[in-house]
Amino acid sequence: MAKKEKTAITPTREEDYPEWYQQVVKASDLAERSPVRGCMVIKPWGYTLWENISRSLDDMFKATGVKNAYFPLFIPLNFLQREADHVEGFAKECAVVTHHRLEKGPDGDLVPAGPLTEPLIVRPTSETIIGESFSKWISSYRDLPLLINQWANVVRWEMRTRIFLRTSEFLWQEGHTAHATAAEAEQRTRMMLDVYADLAENDLAMPVIKGRKSAAERFPGAVDTLTIEAMMQDRKALQAGTSHFLGQNFARASQIRFQTPEATEEFAWTTSWGASTRMIGGLIMTHGDDDGIVVPPKVAPAHIVLLPIVRKEADREPVAAYVEALAAALRDRTYAGKAIGVEVDNRDIGGARGWDWIRKGIPIRVEVGPRDIANQAVFLARRDKSHREKTAMDRNRFVDEAPVILEDIQRQLYEKARTFRETHSRRIDGKKDFWAFFTPKNPEAPEIHGGFAWSHWCGSEDCESRIKEELGVTIRCIPLAAEPEKGGCVCCAQTSDQRVVFAKAY
Amino acid sequence: MAKKEKTAITPTREEDYPEWYQQVVKASDLAERSPVRGCMVIKPWGYTLWENISRSLDDMFKATGVKNAYFPLFIPLNFLQREADHVEGFAKECAVVTHHRLEKGPDGDLVPAGPLTEPLIVRPTSETIIGESFSKWISSYRDLPLLINQWANVVRWEMRTRIFLRTSEFLWQEGHTAHATAAEAEQRTRMMLDVYADLAENDLAMPVIKGRKSAAERFPGAVDTLTIEAMMQDRKALQAGTSHFLGQNFARASQIRFQTPEATEEFAWTTSWGASTRMIGGLIMTHGDDDGIVVPPKVAPAHIVLLPIVRKEADREPVAAYVEALAAALRDRTYAGKAIGVEVDNRDIGGARGWDWIRKGIPIRVEVGPRDIANQAVFLARRDKSHREKTAMDRNRFVDEAPVILEDIQRQLYEKARTFRETHSRRIDGKKDFWAFFTPKNPEAPEIHGGFAWSHWCGSEDCESRIKEELGVTIRCIPLAAEPEKGGCVCCAQTSDQRVVFAKAY
Repeated sequence: MAKKEKTAITPTREEDYPEWYQQVVKASDLAERSPVRGCMVIKPWGYTLWENISRSLDDMFKATGVKNAYFPLFIPLNFLQREADHVEGFAKECAVVTHHRLEKGPDGDLVPAGPLTEPLIVRPTSETIIGESFSKWISSYRDLPLLINQWANVVRWEMRTRIFLRTSEFLWQEGHTAHATAAEAEQRTRMMLDVYADLAENDLAMPVIKGRKSAAERFPGAVDTLTIEAMMQDRKALQAGTSHFLGQNFARASQIRFQTPEATEEFAWTTSWGASTRMIGGLIMTHGDDDGIVVPPKVAPAHIVLLPIVRKEADREPVAAYVEALAAALRDRTYAGKAIGVEVDNRDIGGARGWDWIRKGIPIRVEVGPRDIANQAVFLARRDKSHREKTAMDRNRFVDEAPVILEDIQRQLYEKARTFRETHSRRIDGKKDFWAFFTPKNPEAPEIHGGFAWSHWCGSEDCESRIKEELGVTIRCIPLAAEPEKGGCVCCAQTSDQRVVFAKAY
Repeated sequence: MAKKEKTAITPTREEDYPEWYQQVVKASDLAERSPVRGCMVIKPWGYTLWENISRSLDDMFKATGVKNAYFPLFIPLNFLQREADHVEGFAKECAVVTHHRLEKGPDGDLVPAGPLTEPLIVRPTSETIIGESFSKWISSYRDLPLLINQWANVVRWEMRTRIFLRTSEFLWQEGHTAHATAAEAEQRTRMMLDVYADLAENDLAMPVIKGRKSAAERFPGAVDTLTIEAMMQDRKALQAGTSHFLGQNFARASQIRFQTPEATEEFAWTTSWGASTRMIGGLIMTHGDDDGIVVPPKVAPAHIVLLPIVRKEADREPVAAYVEALAAALRDRTYAGKAIGVEVDNRDIGGARGWDWIRKGIPIRVEVGPRDIANQAVFLARRDKSHREKTAMDRNRFVDEAPVILEDIQRQLYEKARTFRETHSRRIDGKKDFWAFFTPKNPEAPEIHGGFAWSHWCGSEDCESRIKEELGVTIRCIPLAAEPEKGGCVCCAQTSDQRVVFAKAY
C-alpha cells in the first residue's frame, strides 16, 4: 500500500466528506459556529468573499434596471398568512418576536415584558411585506415594471445546521418585481436565473444546470420555480440560486392592482429571486481539496500573498524593500476590472505561514528571499496545482503576467469542475440501473457514490416521492436546455418526453 | 404683507418644522412608514443615498486597516446581562424572540409555538456577541490590534418614531476593536471620530463639532464617548456618529484576555463606534428647503437629470438623440472618483416633472428642447439656487464643466450650513441670558429659537440635569478643540475651565 500523503485537512474528502467540510471551513478562516443556536459568525476572509460575490451580483442586477431598497426585518403574523401555501411552507421555521422589553422578574433576573398585541415574524423571506409596499406604489400600468432588490439577513429556524449551507440566519438578496403581463414576468424570472448562472459559472467557476423545479419542489406559493444546480465533490447537487414566477398569487394576497391602458383594473404579475451565502458553501465543495479551500480569482478576497524569506537579520531590510516594491507594482495591475489584491505576510512562524495561505485558498503564493532578489526573480506557487509545484519566474515578467496567470487559474478551476461533473453524470434508463447508481455498495460505511442521473420521469408525484423515499434522491430540475426525447420513466416505465436530472442533494 | 411664495412643501420650515420634515421625507421619495410599528421602508432613492454614504465610509474604514465581518442577529439574554450598565441601558427597548415556530391554535389561527429555553434579543448593538468571538480570536499580544466592522440592521424598540431619526429598526455600521494598551484604544476611538467628521463635512457637506460626551450622556458601559454634533435648521443638534472608548469593561464582561510579551495575562482595551441611517435625517435637515431635499453631489443617488422638452411630435426623435448623446458624454466624466450619474426623465407630465426632481434634491436639472439643439446648448438649473434661476450654457462647455459645477454646489452647501451654524451659535455667560436663549418668546406657539450655546459648565451632574429638566437642553459635547478658558457655570456660577456646547437635540 502506497504511503498516504500528509494533507492539511483531516479527514480527507474520501475518508469522511461531511467532516472534511466542517474542518475545511474552520481551517480556511471563512466562518465559525456562533454561541447562538444555528447562527454563524462570518470572519473577515469569508465576509470579503461575500462582498465580492454580492458586488458582482449587484452590478449585474443594476445593469438590468433593478434598484435596491430596504424593507422591515419584521413581518406581522397576519401578513404572512395572506398566502396560504406560503405560510404553510414557513410556519415550522419562524423566529417569533412576542415582547418589546425586558423587566426584572421575581428572582431578579431579566424576563421578557411588554407583550405585543400581534406577534412579529423575523422575515424568512419578504414577499408579503414587500407586496404591501408594492400595493401602494403601483396604481397604473405606467408604474410597471417595478424592479426592486433587497440585500438583507433572513431567519429560518433550522434544527440541523451546517455553516453556509443551512443556518438559522443567513445573508442573501431577494429580488421582487411586478409586471403588467404574465409573459413579461416570466421573461424576468428567466433573466434573473441567467444572472445567477452567469455569476456561478464566470465568477465562482462553478458549472451549473439551469432548469425548472417539479411542482413538489417549488417555492411555497409560486407558479413556477427556476433553479441552478451544481455538483459538489461528493456528487450531491447544490441548489445555488432560484428564480420564481409567482403568477398573480402574491398580487392577489397583497392586493397589488394596476389600471391598464384600457382603464380596466388587473392584478400585477410578480416574480421573486434569491441567492445567499449558501453559494459560499457551493464554492467550497466545488473547488476545495484535502489541503483547504481554493478560491476562484474572480471573487478571491485577495489574489496574491507575498511571503518574505528572512533567514538572517541582514536580509530583513533588503527583502522587505523588494517585497514592498513588488506589492506596489502588482497592486497597480488589474484583474477582472479591479486592482490586484496583494497580502504581505511578515509573520515569523516558519512553514506554518505558507500552509495558512494554502488552507485559505489564495490563488497565488510568492516566496521572496535574498537569492530571488539577486536573480530579480520570484518563487511562485499556484493554489490550483500541487503545493510542491513551485516555479522561479522573472520578477518583471511575473508583474506583467499576474493577470494572465489569475485568469488561467480561474479557467482551470472551471474546467476541472466541469470535467468532474461530466464524469459523474450518466444517462440512465431502467429502474435497476437507476437504483444501483444511487445505492452505496457498502451500506455499513457509505462511500461517495452516485452523481447526476439524466433519466426519464413520467411527471407523476407518486414516482417522484417513491424515489425520494427509497433512495433519498430528488428531481433537481427539468433542464431548460434538454432536447425532447421519448423514453420510459425510471420508476414506473410509463412514457416521458424529456430527461430530468436526479440526484441526492444538500 | 408680501404675497407668500408658493412652495413645493407644505407646511414650510418656518410654519411647522416637524411636520415639514415628515412632508419633505415623503415628497423626496427617500423613505416611508411601514405597516410594522416604528419600522421604515427605505425606497430606492433613499437606499442609493445610503449605499453611497456607506461605501464612502467603508473605504475610509478599510484605509485604516479595519476588516468587515458579520455576527449573529440574535443575542442570548445572558450575554446582554454580562455588562450591568449596558443591559440597563437597552432593557427598555429590546425586541425579544421567545418562540421558533407557528402552530394552529384552538381557533385555527396560527400562534407562536416551540418556546425557546432562553429568550433571544434582536441586537440593539453587538458589543456582547462580538466580544464572545473576540475572546476566542485573541490569545496573544500578536493577535492585537483586532479591527473589525459590521454592516447590519439593529433594533431598538422606540415608542415615538420619526423616519431616519428614530426608528425601531435602522441600518448602521458598528466597528469593534481590541488593543493591547489603553493609549492605543483611545487613539483608535479618536481616529474613527475623525473618519465620521470627514464623512460628515466632506461628503455630506454637514459641518460638525467634535467633542466628548458628559458622563450622563455616555454609551451604556463606555468609559468615554466621543461624538460629532451638527446643527439642524431648527437650530437643534443632531448627534451624527459616536465613537466609544470602552476601557476594559467589555473585555472583562466577555473575558477578552491576551498574553503580553512578558507572559503576563491582561484584559484587552476595546472600542466601538457607529453611524447609521440617521445621518440621512441630518442631511435632510441640514440642506433641505421649502421645495424639498437638497442632496450634496458627493453622495447624490444621481447628479444630473436630463429633461427632454418635446412640444410637437416631429421634435421627439432629434431631442431624444441629442439627450442620449449628452447623457453618454456626461457619464464618461467623473466627479469625486466616480462616473457622473445621469437620469433621463422622458415622462410626459408637464411641469410636474421638474418639480419631482426639485423635491428629490438632484444637484443639476437640465432642460433640452429644439431651440437648445439649434444653439448646441443646454438650459441649466442648480438645486442650491432658486428654482427660477436657469441658465443657458454651451453644450460642450457644460459637459466639460459638469464636475466643476458639482464641486461648486458641494462647497456652497457646506458654506451655507456653516454660516447658518455660526449665525445661531453664541458664547453665552450668565444664567439669565442662557435661560432666555433657550426659551421661546411665545410658549403658546413655540417658534424656532435657540441654537448652540457655548457656555461654561462646572462639571456637576446636578447642573446638567437641572438645565435638562427646565429647558430641555443638554450638553451636546465638550469640544475637543476648545481653548481652556476660566469662567462661571451658567447654572451655579461655580468655576469652570472650558466652555461646552449646549443645545436642544434630536
